[in-house]
Amino acid sequence: KVYTQTEHSGQKKLRLLSRAKVLTIDTMNPTVKKVEYAVRGPIVLRAVELERELSEGMKKPFSEVIKANIGDAHAMGQQPITFFRQVLALCSYPELLNDSTFPEDAKSRARRILQSCGGNSMGSYTASQGIDSVRQDVARYIERRDGGVPCDPDDIYLTTGASDGIVTMLKLLVCGEGATRTGVMISIPQYPLYSAALAELGAVQINYYLNEEKCWSMDISELQRALDEARRHCNPRALCVINPGNPTGQVQSRQCIEDVIRFAANERLLLMADEVYQDNVYAEGCQFHSFKKVLFEMGPEYSDTVELVSFHSTSKCYMGECGFRGGYMEIINMDDEVKAQLTKLVSVRLCPPVPGQALMDLVVNPPQPGEPSHDNFIKERTATLSALAEKAKLTEQVLNTIQGISCNPVQGAMYSFPRITIPEKAIQEAMDKGQEPDMFYCMKMLEETGICLVPGSGFGQTDGTYHFRMTILPPTDKLTILLNKVKEFHQKFTQQYS
Amino acid sequence: KVYTQTEHSGQKKLRLLSRAKVLTIDTMNPTVKKVEYAVRGPIVLRAVELERELSEGMKKPFSEVIKANIGDAHAMGQQPITFFRQVLALCSYPELLNDSTFPEDAKSRARRILQSCGGNSMGSYTASQGIDSVRQDVARYIERRDGGVPCDPDDIYLTTGASDGIVTMLKLLVCGEGATRTGVMISIPQYPLYSAALAELGAVQINYYLNEEKCWSMDISELQRALDEARRHCNPRALCVINPGNPTGQVQSRQCIEDVIRFAANERLLLMADEVYQDNVYAEGCQFHSFKKVLFEMGPEYSDTVELVSFHSTSKCYMGECGFRGGYMEIINMDDEVKAQLTKLVSVRLCPPVPGQALMDLVVNPPQPGEPSHDNFIKERTATLSALAEKAKLTEQVLNTIQGISCNPVQGAMYSFPRITIPEKAIQEAMDKGQEPDMFYCMKMLEETGICLVPGSGFGQTDGTYHFRMTILPPTDKLTILLNKVKEFHQKFTQQYS
Repeated sequence: KVYTQTEHSGQKKLRLLSRAKVLTIDTMNPTVKKVEYAVRGPIVLRAVELERELSEGMKKPFSEVIKANIGDAHAMGQQPITFFRQVLALCSYPELLNDSTFPEDAKSRARRILQSCGGNSMGSYTASQGIDSVRQDVARYIERRDGGVPCDPDDIYLTTGASDGIVTMLKLLVCGEGATRTGVMISIPQYPLYSAALAELGAVQINYYLNEEKCWSMDISELQRALDEARRHCNPRALCVINPGNPTGQVQSRQCIEDVIRFAANERLLLMADEVYQDNVYAEGCQFHSFKKVLFEMGPEYSDTVELVSFHSTSKCYMGECGFRGGYMEIINMDDEVKAQLTKLVSVRLCPPVPGQALMDLVVNPPQPGEPSHDNFIKERTATLSALAEKAKLTEQVLNTIQGISCNPVQGAMYSFPRITIPEKAIQEAMDKGQEPDMFYCMKMLEETGICLVPGSGFGQTDGTYHFRMTILPPTDKLTILLNKVKEFHQKFTQQYS
Repeated sequence: KVYTQTEHSGQKKLRLLSRAKVLTIDTMNPTVKKVEYAVRGPIVLRAVELERELSEGMKKPFSEVIKANIGDAHAMGQQPITFFRQVLALCSYPELLNDSTFPEDAKSRARRILQSCGGNSMGSYTASQGIDSVRQDVARYIERRDGGVPCDPDDIYLTTGASDGIVTMLKLLVCGEGATRTGVMISIPQYPLYSAALAELGAVQINYYLNEEKCWSMDISELQRALDEARRHCNPRALCVINPGNPTGQVQSRQCIEDVIRFAANERLLLMADEVYQDNVYAEGCQFHSFKKVLFEMGPEYSDTVELVSFHSTSKCYMGECGFRGGYMEIINMDDEVKAQLTKLVSVRLCPPVPGQALMDLVVNPPQPGEPSHDNFIKERTATLSALAEKAKLTEQVLNTIQGISCNPVQGAMYSFPRITIPEKAIQEAMDKGQEPDMFYCMKMLEETGICLVPGSGFGQTDGTYHFRMTILPPTDKLTILLNKVKEFHQKFTQQYS
């Protein structure tokens, strides 16, 4: 403690100044403290540490840390789409428009994007909602995808990745205190962006459980149960759905989506459809149905009334361009005044990153048949998606050969979320350490094998069950090694604690 | 209203369904409604409309809308730095590393950036705090800038533009209710990101007024007045300073900064220094002093205790790369536990856009003497900064020739914030329309001349005074036309309402 005599505006004051920090764990925003985000949690921090220790020559029982914790395709060796990167290079350094080695279709795309930028530069701010021409291209993409259901570019907001759009929408929704506080329904298991955003906003998280026995499908009676219980203590206003599922990898049937829309309509819930994995569908008989298309097929009673927001991103699918932070959301049936507020709110952050906007444009407007880059684009896209389909199958098959591990088919997205049996003794040891049993399991796996997975507790799971999430992204040869190491580890772990 | 019969889980219910919107202006987040952001407010929406009308062939008293509302350099014709864009193109499309027309230093920078990216791709997520090697380069830049004051890369967080960092820091600070609610001191006039963020977070905005008579300097007695008043109804915890000033263009003296630091220390306020215009200093005798450097020159009593966060960006200075949304913040003397919470919080959004991180790296690590791109880099940077200095002078000079307009010198940043005399009759007419008088004035100017400025009321100003903010960014010839049009308009307006 320091005593200082200060003299201000003619007034003498002797002031006891405690030079303790202004901002401490006890005086910081309490809602921020409640935020948790397992995908980059303690296990990942430890993985980074282990990588450093390896690089410093420390001896470990493994030679490499394999990060299967996050859907980070390029980091796992997936190659970017050549055409996309050519256009981005042209937009970054327009001198290259004179370079004859670049294909004409890449150049014409780049010219179109640059013409939409102030001063023809990606260095200019754009409209806060995103570049007009990009939003027009997004609208046409959605119309093609949904068999002609109309889409208004004014309903498209470009975003900084899908996360940005999701948080913005949740922010609009939150109001009330105590029993009237906004509640938002999210699936369990969930992608922890949702729980993190709800914690930060101080909204009530309403859990509905996916049905693991039925391949992680949604169950209307479970939605109803969760909603009815929640109504006793909060004001449920929105229902979030991730399809294809993260972390659970299921692809919802058209019937299920219709049922969910009817439920949302009847219960007056705004629907948030996280559809960032819309191209990642692998299982035979499965197909991606957008919530919007199904909504419009249900007729005007629904399509004129149900408030729906759908999110997409450049980070997943076949492009995997996470680092560019591109995305969009489409808002359907949103009240005009609220839309104006949304536009105002996004204007405070000026605009989403322009390279991400450009990339989003390329995703929704890729090379067309007859254009010079078309064949190579199709070849690259197909190669990536086929490899993912193969790895989805491989992952399911190998994991299901392990005694004490069982997993649903990876129908879509990029993850397997197997259920693991953890021996009672291990559960006890974890508890003694104050750790979730699956965190204990994953930490041990990391230390012994270098494999970084995310414990199921980071996503939520039925009490007494344990899981982990692993991505299917490593190259096939590495994935095979990884799966065999998981097998070995699980057997050893089970023996050790039996 | 629609009646629907629904049957769920065996239970029959007849439910009256009101199909009113879930989300309406009355049921949305009330803090979002309070957000205002004049830089992209109604006047800009009207400017965009006018541009459309012009392009559709509608007759107007002008042939072009000139947007002097926002610090958007490239949109106003400023050229990007060639070296920066070459490296970005190389990083986007690494095939170009084989292209002999690119200079070697650009290639080696690109290789270094790509080596720091997972899978050597800008499409990978990075660490949430930003790429390690970029943070190291930032730290070295700060050390050079501040004459050797040490900087730890662990204290650097890369951000999505400076706005992102500022909002994140404010978010950490907010807590308490009623008289213990966090208050944050901001200058008036201010950059409205601050008021918008505080409104959204529900924090208390504490206004301290800059002294227009003394070239918009900060006045400790005014800070004390504002703080003492605020202490009666909230818990002031932070003091925000923008230097060089936005919208006011002043550059603070070293003495003033020292006084402010002492004030913050004595009053236990966390300091937030918005230093995004650190290269934009034009007036003779003015120099940029970083808050950090001054803090460390004040000795350990201050440098060991005062919590300081400094923000920088790729959007301003000589680069003007707004669209890439690059930036960083340096946090000094932050409590370790709070820092861990900050790292966790930023991890939810995964990472700042990688092209923006790459650009930030180039800004802090530009071509060095002896490298092939050095001379051209210096030439381009000097040209841009000299042109800005010239336009700063031109703007001040012409505006001060107008009767009824007076402005301080534009010592730095990119804006002039002249005071305008609005005749009583015009004030009355504005009031009748429910408009701020300077909004009325700027709207009229836009309709009659096509010039888009932002009214002073969007930034805050002493009651009964009126201002506008205009950027000095248009090319000199266009700026001359613009200033003459402002002169003509002001004279006509004054006559009309006298």
